[in-house]
Amino acid sequence: MSRRLIFLSAFEMNTVGHLAHGLWRHPRDQSSRYTDIDYWMDLARLLERGLFDAVFLADVTGTYDVYGGGPHAAIRHAVQVPINDPMLLVPAMASVTQHLGFGVTVGTGGEAPYLFARRMSTLDHLTRGRIGWNIVTGFLDRAARGRGESGQPDHDERYDAADEFMNVVYGLWESSWADDAVVRDRASGLYAQPEKVRPVRHAGPRFPLNAIHLSEPSPQRSPLLFQAGASARGRVFAVRHGECIFVPNLGPSRTAAIVRDIRAQAVQAGRSPDSLRLLTGLQVIVARTEREAQDKYAEYRRYALPEAGLTQLASATGIDFSRFEADEVIPDFRSNSIQSSAEALAADGQWTVRKLLADMPLGGRYAPIVGSPGQIADAMASWVEETGIDGFNLARSVSPESFADFIDLVVPELQTRGLFKHSYAPGTLREKIFGSPRLPPTHPGAGDALAKMPWPT
Amino acid sequence: MSRRLIFLSAFEMNTVGHLAHGLWRHPRDQSSRYTDIDYWMDLARLLERGLFDAVFLADVTGTYDVYGGGPHAAIRHAVQVPINDPMLLVPAMASVTQHLGFGVTVGTGGEAPYLFARRMSTLDHLTRGRIGWNIVTGFLDRAARGRGESGQPDHDERYDAADEFMNVVYGLWESSWADDAVVRDRASGLYAQPEKVRPVRHAGPRFPLNAIHLSEPSPQRSPLLFQAGASARGRVFAVRHGECIFVPNLGPSRTAAIVRDIRAQAVQAGRSPDSLRLLTGLQVIVARTEREAQDKYAEYRRYALPEAGLTQLASATGIDFSRFEADEVIPDFRSNSIQSSAEALAADGQWTVRKLLADMPLGGRYAPIVGSPGQIADAMASWVEETGIDGFNLARSVSPESFADFIDLVVPELQTRGLFKHSYAPGTLREKIFGSPRLPPTHPGAGDALAKMPWPT
Repeated sequence: MSRRLIFLSAFEMNTVGHLAHGLWRHPRDQSSRYTDIDYWMDLARLLERGLFDAVFLADVTGTYDVYGGGPHAAIRHAVQVPINDPMLLVPAMASVTQHLGFGVTVGTGGEAPYLFARRMSTLDHLTRGRIGWNIVTGFLDRAARGRGESGQPDHDERYDAADEFMNVVYGLWESSWADDAVVRDRASGLYAQPEKVRPVRHAGPRFPLNAIHLSEPSPQRSPLLFQAGASARGRVFAVRHGECIFVPNLGPSRTAAIVRDIRAQAVQAGRSPDSLRLLTGLQVIVARTEREAQDKYAEYRRYALPEAGLTQLASATGIDFSRFEADEVIPDFRSNSIQSSAEALAADGQWTVRKLLADMPLGGRYAPIVGSPGQIADAMASWVEETGIDGFNLARSVSPESFADFIDLVVPELQTRGLFKHSYAPGTLREKIFGSPRLPPTHPGAGDALAKMPWPT
Repeated sequence: MSRRLIFLSAFEMNTVGHLAHGLWRHPRDQSSRYTDIDYWMDLARLLERGLFDAVFLADVTGTYDVYGGGPHAAIRHAVQVPINDPMLLVPAMASVTQHLGFGVTVGTGGEAPYLFARRMSTLDHLTRGRIGWNIVTGFLDRAARGRGESGQPDHDERYDAADEFMNVVYGLWESSWADDAVVRDRASGLYAQPEKVRPVRHAGPRFPLNAIHLSEPSPQRSPLLFQAGASARGRVFAVRHGECIFVPNLGPSRTAAIVRDIRAQAVQAGRSPDSLRLLTGLQVIVARTEREAQDKYAEYRRYALPEAGLTQLASATGIDFSRFEADEVIPDFRSNSIQSSAEALAADGQWTVRKLLADMPLGGRYAPIVGSPGQIADAMASWVEETGIDGFNLARSVSPESFADFIDLVVPELQTRGLFKHSYAPGTLREKIFGSPRLPPTHPGAGDALAKMPWPT
């Protein structure tokens, strides 16, 4: 099989500290300008110059409050708090780009599907078909409390609710307006043919609906669908709905096993293997030479705050690390882990707070790849070779410098090796990646849902 | 008292047919480009060139389905359907302007206050303090059905729920983060002082909450608040919360009475008279001479579809006009009216469909002012003089031509007469209008709510 080009997205968040905690303190870091629209427009221009397929905007709608039993540590070091809405960055970033895609994280738990579907259609129109949606089924406990619930619903119930949410939004995006509904005939005054627009009727139980979609068909109809479900139930959901699926970076061999399992499950679920892209997170420190890269890494580390990284890990694992002495063994670390990355950290033995801190040199759970452009390209090529992954979600360290370094130094190297594109493909985000603007027939949300639903009389 | 300058906003909607139905058919009309981001960015530049205080983005989240017992007529003529999300236009329009304000319509019925508050704070950050919110307490029945409800809640209950919604979002915007919470001290790694950030605790009944606001304080904290409640209960809500209040255009004498009543009620509610601006809708057809303006008006009328206007009026009044013969008297027209403009139409006698159609020469409920720049300025000045209104929400007819005509011809005339500014005032939207960036102390959402709430221990 011919080699597929590497997919690249920039892993971002509308916040100061995303994954490399403390690096907002670096003199050249601009992440504390996250409230400034120019910061995001400049980033969009930069990423498009580097031919990034997309910018992926993470989100969380609660505050990390396990460490120390409250949000104090997270607030002190800006560990994903304050955090602004990711969706509202897209129109500004789209206004200065032509090709860059957008993967926006929105949870199914806090939104009304009817209005959410219109938001996504609006973005698909405004971006001319460049919108993607990272489907998240649950955020933090505190986010649920923000909505007035006593806590998150049961894990499996959450996925059942998310499946129902998906059916409703597929109905709105794919089946409410026929392709030829909109006519725009100025002479007769016929804007759209009413008999080609029909209500989506859904009985419930959670999201009853009986209404037409408010938006006319957008270039992609359904946004490109990102998913990252890691649990057993989560993986069922991911292979059912996801087009771009995130895989935790657990080192080559374990990651390869997950990649194989996801591809096999997707085929079992009736999906075409070619309709999926699997991505993993990556952090890169690059300079012209290995020596310079190591110097840069050492310099970055001086600003990192590994203890701030512990704040995020505490909420990811449910363990309040503040209760442990530095060299006290943390019991049940693996069994309590809810994020696979935490499992990876614990894979080699017993963990203490001191070991955890030493394992987060840039203030977070990512182990950066450090080296010359050639070394970075080697490492990325090996990753693809060994794991079968399709691409990478590149996390920032010093922002936007680490993206600029990657674009100036690594992208040309990848291009020279035939691993990365020299220009964007035409069309919508889905077209650029999969060659077709719409969900493929093997996807459960695909437009033949039209055929399954009764037209109104 | 010295004459106050006229406030001007552009009355827009993220849709094809807003109020002048059928005019999307005009050869120069560009409203069917509403899905194109460049259309909105060009409009923003145009309005800022004309020193408009704001663009006001209306919204509706249901389809007009009273006429003919279904949505067919509305879909056929693009009567506010399809309609895209208004909020997502703001970042793009803000990216090419420095001063133009934004009044975005969002209903309190379909949104979770916790996430909505973050959206507004995000926009206030991205616009550098230029965001306004038009608070709407209820949309159409179909919108409620879209959310799975059997219909709209009772009218007064709707306002009670909206009052509770307001208290929650005021708490998040005004009281969660102290002004000096954010420090951004790179040396110590202290981004924000945790002891200056506190959860908003609200017991309910509808919107229980126990969480800190996700966003750090934005330039205005609370967005500039627009309101248009017209019923008795609605007016109580409007004078409690609104900073810019819309008054229906019912002709000078009736409008003047409403203006007096709103100002009196506001003072009774403890608001400062100077903390309010009252606006009414206006449609203008202007050319260099009266003759040319009349010609233009006649030309516009050839494209209008008054029967499409009936579709909107049917949902506003609850009367299915399709059931009446052209000259059949429509019974109970006034008592069924829920929009005051419809009351105005019926004020002079008995109505028939033929009379209604003749009364909507541009396809909607606005009676345009037609004339030379001097005549338009005369009419606007008289309106201000006779009604005590502070300004106008200018509806489009042919888009964006009618805004461009107004800016090129009427604005200079108003400036010459000392009725309109020659440049923008500095600062946030609220500062430009009221001289202060924050809600005034007489407003119920103002920051001294901070003093009333307990700090966490």
